[in-house]
Amino acid sequence: MTTYDIALIGFGGVNRTLAELIATRGEQLQTELGFGLRIVAITDLRLGSLLQPQGIELGMALNLGNGTETFADHGGSADTNNESVIRTSTAEIICEATFTNPLDGEPAVSHVQWALESGKSVCTTNKGPVALRGAELSALARQNGVHFEFEGAVMSGTPVIRLAKTMLEGLKLNGFEGILNGTSNYVLGRMEAGLTFEAAIKEAQGLGYAEADPAADIEGFDVQLKVLILANELLNAGIELKDVQRQGISSVTPADIQKAAVEGRRWKLVGSARKNPDGTVSAGVAPVALPLDHGLAGISAATNAVSFDTDLLGPVTVSGPGAGRIETAYALLSDIIAIHAAKTGVAANV
Amino acid sequence: MTTYDIALIGFGGVNRTLAELIATRGEQLQTELGFGLRIVAITDLRLGSLLQPQGIELGMALNLGNGTETFADHGGSADTNNESVIRTSTAEIICEATFTNPLDGEPAVSHVQWALESGKSVCTTNKGPVALRGAELSALARQNGVHFEFEGAVMSGTPVIRLAKTMLEGLKLNGFEGILNGTSNYVLGRMEAGLTFEAAIKEAQGLGYAEADPAADIEGFDVQLKVLILANELLNAGIELKDVQRQGISSVTPADIQKAAVEGRRWKLVGSARKNPDGTVSAGVAPVALPLDHGLAGISAATNAVSFDTDLLGPVTVSGPGAGRIETAYALLSDIIAIHAAKTGVAANV
Repeated sequence: MTTYDIALIGFGGVNRTLAELIATRGEQLQTELGFGLRIVAITDLRLGSLLQPQGIELGMALNLGNGTETFADHGGSADTNNESVIRTSTAEIICEATFTNPLDGEPAVSHVQWALESGKSVCTTNKGPVALRGAELSALARQNGVHFEFEGAVMSGTPVIRLAKTMLEGLKLNGFEGILNGTSNYVLGRMEAGLTFEAAIKEAQGLGYAEADPAADIEGFDVQLKVLILANELLNAGIELKDVQRQGISSVTPADIQKAAVEGRRWKLVGSARKNPDGTVSAGVAPVALPLDHGLAGISAATNAVSFDTDLLGPVTVSGPGAGRIETAYALLSDIIAIHAAKTGVAANV
Repeated sequence: MTTYDIALIGFGGVNRTLAELIATRGEQLQTELGFGLRIVAITDLRLGSLLQPQGIELGMALNLGNGTETFADHGGSADTNNESVIRTSTAEIICEATFTNPLDGEPAVSHVQWALESGKSVCTTNKGPVALRGAELSALARQNGVHFEFEGAVMSGTPVIRLAKTMLEGLKLNGFEGILNGTSNYVLGRMEAGLTFEAAIKEAQGLGYAEADPAADIEGFDVQLKVLILANELLNAGIELKDVQRQGISSVTPADIQKAAVEGRRWKLVGSARKNPDGTVSAGVAPVALPLDHGLAGISAATNAVSFDTDLLGPVTVSGPGAGRIETAYALLSDIIAIHAAKTGVAANV
């Protein structure tokens, strides 16, 4: 049976959870999926790096971070060595889960490039490289005969990109609209329940939904990156970040929300893109007062959803979690499953 | 480039629309999908049958039914000859779209058997053979090295079965719940707007949503078949029709609906199945007063939806059309796309 050797770049919540999944249910997954997973390299800003072609002992790795030990105490290095690890590791697949840099995507862009150049496939949950350099990196993957997969960059483990590409084949996709940020959706919901904008954000921060600086979520920057990814991947838009109009929810007042409620509407932060008759694509993020019978009006709290506008089926909508450690780690697993299917030519379960 | 030769069994709305799609956008689909489609046989109860290995002229076939001509006037036979056509046709794929018989699935079960036995793959939108004889027919397909696909038997072209099998791989599916009948959903919605049950049904009949005898939709028989299909396909339930508890919406009174509205709830006809701790599966159809923030409460009118309960992602929901000529014809096309992917070993777009 095939075993895929994997390198984890970044050992924060997402890749750590992937390691936990492999440690706790690797055998079961092997039976179900028809392949094994072995982690042969890990790098982390705080913990340093470790290369072990025979497989890293995951119990040890998962314990690091609780004390002062680093990989240097276990045969590795105190340095991150990302380029060296990525290029020289025996891994066939690199799981990139470092932080999203919305300006230039670095250092994740370099991580992905190094991997693809050295003939390794990449799975990532990082919006930066996909949104800002996606076309170029996908081309680099094709040139090197490897795969670049990034389902988790949009709605964590909820299938969106692959769903649209494989489940809606043969349809014309005219556009999409989605609720792609749980924090802003939660805040709008709480404002509907009577809280002020400030109180709702404070509550979201207390629950761990919102960052100390909530701007990325509240002002639509996060959704802007996701719309860019979906527009380029699904509509071949060929657009850049500046082409995605952006307006956050800070301009929505309690009076707006009350007025909407009276009119049978509900404010949502909607990311959308649409093909124009001339072939160009218009894309943006903005708060919209949706009628209650709109397919996205009932998407509440931290749930995300995307509605695809298709020619033969009309709207087809998928909803599910948009964030979360386990949910995002599953996205990496789903990417590996897709790579396996492509390599073996087995369209799963057909 | 591969061209698939196809036989259409039943030339009513669904297969006729598939023929229209092939006639009007066959070339475009060929460019997009990488294969061509050629209809080489058609049988129909009213129109008789026609076998033309070099391809049937679709303009002629689509014109039949407007006048008194049959296939006998165009080189075919006035008889249906289903067994002979299915067994002797040069078609590689049989599209079965005759009526659903909820008692024993015939004659569709025989159509599927004849095709699979003679080494032909089958796509069907017919709930009968899938719900009542699904496991047996799938086994027959495997024995003969061919495919038995039936995405359209549950939610027309909206991907449900294939979505759960391929997009949610590696997850544990604990159960599902769905709104699987547009007519009953429409009637409940109109009752919420103040109509009586009888008036709502009359309106649905006027709009063409409900049959003259609405029992199959209203009393849950249609949903029962769909739940049986999903439970056996996705949860390996190994159950029969009698194991799916069934209650329709005729017992829901205007008073029930008003009471639910006061409590922030909404009645829906929910089809569901769930794995029990002992490995068995409980399945049923019943009206349920869902809280408004439930993922299925906002599914309105003729839209259908299924919510999958997964271990790592929690609920993942897909919604879209559940019926319609074009929507159901697309389901057949999506089945053919899946067969092509399996045959060529190309997991599309990965």
